[in-house]
Amino acid sequence: MEQRISLVTLGVTDLARARRFYEALGWRGQEVEETVFFQAGGLGLVLWGREKLARDSGREAGGAGGFGGIVLAHNVRSRDEVDALLAQAEQAGGRVTKPAAASPHGFYSGAFADPDGHPWEVAHNPGFPLAEDGTLTLPDFDTL
Amino acid sequence: MEQRISLVTLGVTDLARARRFYEALGWRGQEVEETVFFQAGGLGLVLWGREKLARDSGREAGGAGGFGGIVLAHNVRSRDEVDALLAQAEQAGGRVTKPAAASPHGFYSGAFADPDGHPWEVAHNPGFPLAEDGTLTLPDFDTL
Repeated sequence: MEQRISLVTLGVTDLARARRFYEALGWRGQEVEETVFFQAGGLGLVLWGREKLARDSGREAGGAGGFGGIVLAHNVRSRDEVDALLAQAEQAGGRVTKPAAASPHGFYSGAFADPDGHPWEVAHNPGFPLAEDGTLTLPDFDTL
Repeated sequence: MEQRISLVTLGVTDLARARRFYEALGWRGQEVEETVFFQAGGLGLVLWGREKLARDSGREAGGAGGFGGIVLAHNVRSRDEVDALLAQAEQAGGRVTKPAAASPHGFYSGAFADPDGHPWEVAHNPGFPLAEDGTLTLPDFDTL
């Protein structure tokens, strides 16, 4: 198995609401057969009905909105961008679940939940360099 | 907000077990302060304690193992690779939750759960081209 992720699919209970949220954050996607596809760097972020997604994975859908144990992170280039994005997420109908704060490890981050409760961390972390195109490269931790 | 994901963090209840699972699939990571980091294309896949991850996102951890509403997908270049990866995931301590099958849309996929229940779809989808380096580009659906 190569070390890569091809798609991240978020199960949603209201596709139009979920699409509006990500579009209010500036994302632009394509809707096909009740599925919204966003090109996100070298992978796709997909919005699809939660029940259908569970069934397609051979799982029980369970209750929506709880903590599912997976957190997506969006790293930005400055602390100001962290603050701005959290404010924008709230305006767009998300919920700030952790206000931005500095960590002892030198990064600055907060978190929001999208309208279905899916968690996003928003971080400025100078230790994890971002290329011009947003690609993140992990450091060699032995040399830090 | 740019259209990209910087990190995907999987909350785990047993870090050593989770790391062994992904290493048995061929991934190689770095462990730092009870956190395992894998470079996964242009982003990082991270394994971290589920309770810590929840707290860090301002959420309640809730029960592990259920369907959290997020599915990761790993697309490969042939149907044989789908079958081989599902078998390998099972041998490594995962659980095949959906045996591979062809879909009317022309792709072939199955799904497994990692030891913490995090779902991965494994798919061969000729409609979603993969570059040499594994980068996935969504098609322009209007032209299909």
